[in-house]
Amino acid sequence: MNSFGRLFRISIFGESHGPMIGIVIDGCPPGIEIDPADLETDLARRRSGATGTTPRIEPDIPEFGSGVFNGVTTGAPLTIFFRNTNTKSKDYSLFTTVPRPGHADFVAIKKYKGYHDHRGGGHFSGRLTLALVAAGVLAKKIVHKMNIKAELIEAGGKPDIDKAIAEAIENNDSIGGLIECRVENVPVGLGEPFFDSLESVISHLVFSIPAIKGIEFGSGFSAARMNGSRHNDALVDTNGETASNYAGGINGGISNGNDLFFRVAVKPTSSISGKQRTISLETAEMTDLEVKGRHDLCIALRVPVIVESVTAIALADLILIDKAW
Amino acid sequence: MNSFGRLFRISIFGESHGPMIGIVIDGCPPGIEIDPADLETDLARRRSGATGTTPRIEPDIPEFGSGVFNGVTTGAPLTIFFRNTNTKSKDYSLFTTVPRPGHADFVAIKKYKGYHDHRGGGHFSGRLTLALVAAGVLAKKIVHKMNIKAELIEAGGKPDIDKAIAEAIENNDSIGGLIECRVENVPVGLGEPFFDSLESVISHLVFSIPAIKGIEFGSGFSAARMNGSRHNDALVDTNGETASNYAGGINGGISNGNDLFFRVAVKPTSSISGKQRTISLETAEMTDLEVKGRHDLCIALRVPVIVESVTAIALADLILIDKAW
Amino acid sequence: MNSFGRLFRISIFGESHGPMIGIVIDGCPPGIEIDPADLETDLARRRSGATGTTPRIEPDIPEFGSGVFNGVTTGAPLTIFFRNTNTKSKDYSLFTTVPRPGHADFVAIKKYKGYHDHRGGGHFSGRLTLALVAAGVLAKKIVHKMNIKAELIEAGGKPDIDKAIAEAIENNDSIGGLIECRVENVPVGLGEPFFDSLESVISHLVFSIPAIKGIEFGSGFSAARMNGSRHNDALVDTNGETASNYAGGINGGISNGNDLFFRVAVKPTSSISGKQRTISLETAEMTDLEVKGRHDLCIALRVPVIVESVTAIALADLILIDKAW
Amino acid sequence: MNSFGRLFRISIFGESHGPMIGIVIDGCPPGIEIDPADLETDLARRRSGATGTTPRIEPDIPEFGSGVFNGVTTGAPLTIFFRNTNTKSKDYSLFTTVPRPGHADFVAIKKYKGYHDHRGGGHFSGRLTLALVAAGVLAKKIVHKMNIKAELIEAGGKPDIDKAIAEAIENNDSIGGLIECRVENVPVGLGEPFFDSLESVISHLVFSIPAIKGIEFGSGFSAARMNGSRHNDALVDTNGETASNYAGGINGGISNGNDLFFRVAVKPTSSISGKQRTISLETAEMTDLEVKGRHDLCIALRVPVIVESVTAIALADLILIDKAW
Repeated sequence: MNSFGRLFRISIFGESHGPMIGIVIDGCPPGIEIDPADLETDLARRRSGATGTTPRIEPDIPEFGSGVFNGVTTGAPLTIFFRNTNTKSKDYSLFTTVPRPGHADFVAIKKYKGYHDHRGGGHFSGRLTLALVAAGVLAKKIVHKMNIKAELIEAGGKPDIDKAIAEAIENNDSIGGLIECRVENVPVGLGEPFFDSLESVISHLVFSIPAIKGIEFGSGFSAARMNGSRHNDALVDTNGETASNYAGGINGGISNGNDLFFRVAVKPTSSISGKQRTISLETAEMTDLEVKGRHDLCIALRVPVIVESVTAIALADLILIDKAW
Repeated sequence: MNSFGRLFRISIFGESHGPMIGIVIDGCPPGIEIDPADLETDLARRRSGATGTTPRIEPDIPEFGSGVFNGVTTGAPLTIFFRNTNTKSKDYSLFTTVPRPGHADFVAIKKYKGYHDHRGGGHFSGRLTLALVAAGVLAKKIVHKMNIKAELIEAGGKPDIDKAIAEAIENNDSIGGLIECRVENVPVGLGEPFFDSLESVISHLVFSIPAIKGIEFGSGFSAARMNGSRHNDALVDTNGETASNYAGGINGGISNGNDLFFRVAVKPTSSISGKQRTISLETAEMTDLEVKGRHDLCIALRVPVIVESVTAIALADLILIDKAW
Repeated sequence: MNSFGRLFRISIFGESHGPMIGIVIDGCPPGIEIDPADLETDLARRRSGATGTTPRIEPDIPEFGSGVFNGVTTGAPLTIFFRNTNTKSKDYSLFTTVPRPGHADFVAIKKYKGYHDHRGGGHFSGRLTLALVAAGVLAKKIVHKMNIKAELIEAGGKPDIDKAIAEAIENNDSIGGLIECRVENVPVGLGEPFFDSLESVISHLVFSIPAIKGIEFGSGFSAARMNGSRHNDALVDTNGETASNYAGGINGGISNGNDLFFRVAVKPTSSISGKQRTISLETAEMTDLEVKGRHDLCIALRVPVIVESVTAIALADLILIDKAW
Repeated sequence: MNSFGRLFRISIFGESHGPMIGIVIDGCPPGIEIDPADLETDLARRRSGATGTTPRIEPDIPEFGSGVFNGVTTGAPLTIFFRNTNTKSKDYSLFTTVPRPGHADFVAIKKYKGYHDHRGGGHFSGRLTLALVAAGVLAKKIVHKMNIKAELIEAGGKPDIDKAIAEAIENNDSIGGLIECRVENVPVGLGEPFFDSLESVISHLVFSIPAIKGIEFGSGFSAARMNGSRHNDALVDTNGETASNYAGGINGGISNGNDLFFRVAVKPTSSISGKQRTISLETAEMTDLEVKGRHDLCIALRVPVIVESVTAIALADLILIDKAW
């Protein structure tokens, strides 16, 4: 399903090589100043062009289809879309019969009975995250008192990311990465357990981003190896500040006022340039496949701003819900 | 929010020391044979009593309040509840002013303005997972062709779990654990991207379980350190079988027909027996707190069946949705 | 689907002759005083016993299963249930093969594949409205500044209702009725168009009540015969008060601060005592059917408090949503 | 909230004088042939131009933004939008301080804190129903075995509609109308009580259409004046056919296989050409207002196709849900 959220609600649409990709943001409070230029910083962070990213460069010009009047949100659904201009569709036709390893080609053929738009990955394309970033800009304005910051802390297993990219280029192979996201100034009380814990809502959105393989909050997987006497964060004041922060800012699914933080694992880009083995759905024989097209060597480079965006979207929804009581 | 699911929809209720805990299961297809005895195996797996688990032993007798007629589901909402019988509420009154580290005491006081039922953790208690297990039994019947199996593969960082528990008892300190869940015979096509990817739905439910700090699918966090040439799983037949399974059975948010598997990190039980430092909300001074009551030394021991249950709930919903097309 | 609402969310369960009927109320703000005795006035209004109502008299004793602590709502899901005690199930077995005209017997057999609990109408029974009334009491507390009042203004086409009932008894035939509901002190701004207009949300809930055939707001069906020059309500002050109220207190799907009012048509009770023609699903022949059991002659007598309840439920949800901005 | 539906889910956006109005249709099954030309018949029925309708004539050219590939639905969200071209915005600025009687001006100012796009009614404009008609064309393709037909059966209280329009023109006053919608070949079993009865879902959508004041199913309001012995529809065969159809094709909230039918009351267009009294929000004094602009004399003329569309949308969602069991 292509919608998410309870009060701040987003509906995403579009395909990589279709006319446009976009998002409808429903429930955005009226009176928020918004200008297409406000999106530029985050769009630029997501955009390709840096070393290790795809040479497909789109201008990424946001257009407002609705919900903005005199430069201010109206309270009606706000639509932002981006026209697709730089598409090379012929590159992809092969994959409807020879599915690429690591991609959604095979499952898409089965689930959508062969009718999906396969060009450039279609609706599965990472290009749809452009819409998430756009919605994230709005969401950040709603939660503007919080400070959301995600960064790539490791690529290909190395903290020196430039070096990791250089090596990947040399090896002509893609690499994964590790992203940490931290949010400061989170008020106490966000999160709606039992089912809509803060972790549940954030992880739901984070796993919508293509290529994510794992998420951990606070101590995360290391908690599995820890003792309670160390893991318990001692409260040190009546605002809930804790001496340590193994909890990652969350207890019982609810923000506790300390920094919220989590880490996200990004797999290596599935599109690589060498020969790969796969099945031909026509011949039912295994075959060599060489994927051309334009791709990222380390998609993780472009993911931090997307992680920030979905975090902001989650927090915007939860802060609006929190006002109801 | 205390409901989850689109077609197979659960609504959970209850507190640890209130009259009962229970769950309403809406959207359960008619004609499924169900008897309270069918729940016993999974309830027993969750139940305390083994070494390392709390000495609070409840009989856990499921009662059907609605939705079952002549031993068969009717298609109307199916309600299962468990009366709470073995409650020692006096143990908990202190924590409304002296919040326990690692627990939800502090956030509950703030979010629910002091009105929450604090006894035994109230609505935050791990006892609510009893209701998840009950719903999971129904869900497993819906997805009975799949084989869902979760197990504790590490406790306190050690694969020898008996030894880990023995050490924890000796140290009088709680420990965390690592759980792996694997599902065989998953049909191709489950998962509803963009937002309801298989990972999104499973992680949403998994993070509803108290004490979970992280989740990773397939290669998980190790993917961040891998190359694409290795991570891409080569397709070897027209059913989508792959030579390796770094994907964990999912591409593009949709099951690909291979085994679905993921790992979950469980933190050490927050209730430990030694003295801990915390704040007194009355005096605004730090103070020593000694938590009595009856608790688990390694809550992770009881979590595998809960992970199975929420996985079954996620898959039941997705398989019903899948039938719509 | 058996749940409704966005922030104030109800999940209903139970069958007429099963163990219980009940409702889970999620999203109820903490700190609201509630005692089982608070339900008595509204439960009594719904209860049978008056002339023209069924002789099946249940004690209707509400039990709180969760969500109340020290007589106050906690913010966790509040469960209210009523045990069924006075059930005569043998009366109903015939209708699984000889469906009663005007009842849900035939559709239930088809939709639930023969597995539904047919006893006393099962999940279709008017007895489930008991749960709506219980939830309505909570909802009224949330919208306590508004004054919600529904009454039967016509039975069998007559404004003198005692007379209409007397005639129906004489004729040994059931009759329908017309209910008007009026809400005073509605704040301006409730309703969430485009799809969740105030009329949409209220009508959605009203048509959940068994036996409702129509709803009209303000001028209603007479609007179809009116001119705009008369129908337009002139605004007379800056609070939005209007000289007339053909709008019924709603413009553009949003409350305008004037009295909200609507009328609801209730069909005659389907269970009547004479012989009726219907089909036998066993013989595929038409047959005579005589419905025994205990029923209402004018179910509309018991519906006003139910209409009030669902109106309160709708308004409670919308007023919580309204606070988000 | 601007989304509706569980599996076939629509999200509407746009304002009368903004760049575009449109709709995202999520959950549309893949493989349905769709061409912009397929929309023409229904769009033409909704379009103005006939006697009694507004002289604002828009070309109403549908553009597909996503979800269609090679003339066939893909299973991804399908976006249809219509650019606004013929807008005269200066006509409307007055109404932000002098709200028009019968319109949403006053409530919009209050609810959206003055930030709403007031031009041409903004998001409240009847122009948004264009998007409903577009989605209805898709929905009709999903329920293509059913035959949905709505028509205006009365205008200004008269069954001779040409005459009624002529009189309205002569009187220079707007008139209301009565619409009947009938659906043939509805399968048994659509509708999801308790809360998502067929009547609930249809009425929810119908009351999203601007200017609707009432809805009645089958016997409707006349049921309130009838006896049960007459109102009960005798079943005459094992397919559920009934001798009469006072039920309007629905029992217990579920379709019974007979024709589904209901009537809808449309109020007279609020925009009329004479002087009207209203309040000035600036001076807090009553004042004369003369509404210019281009409007319909009998908006009901354009509503039948919209009623058909929302009926198809409701049925499409319910038929997809029905497949889950």
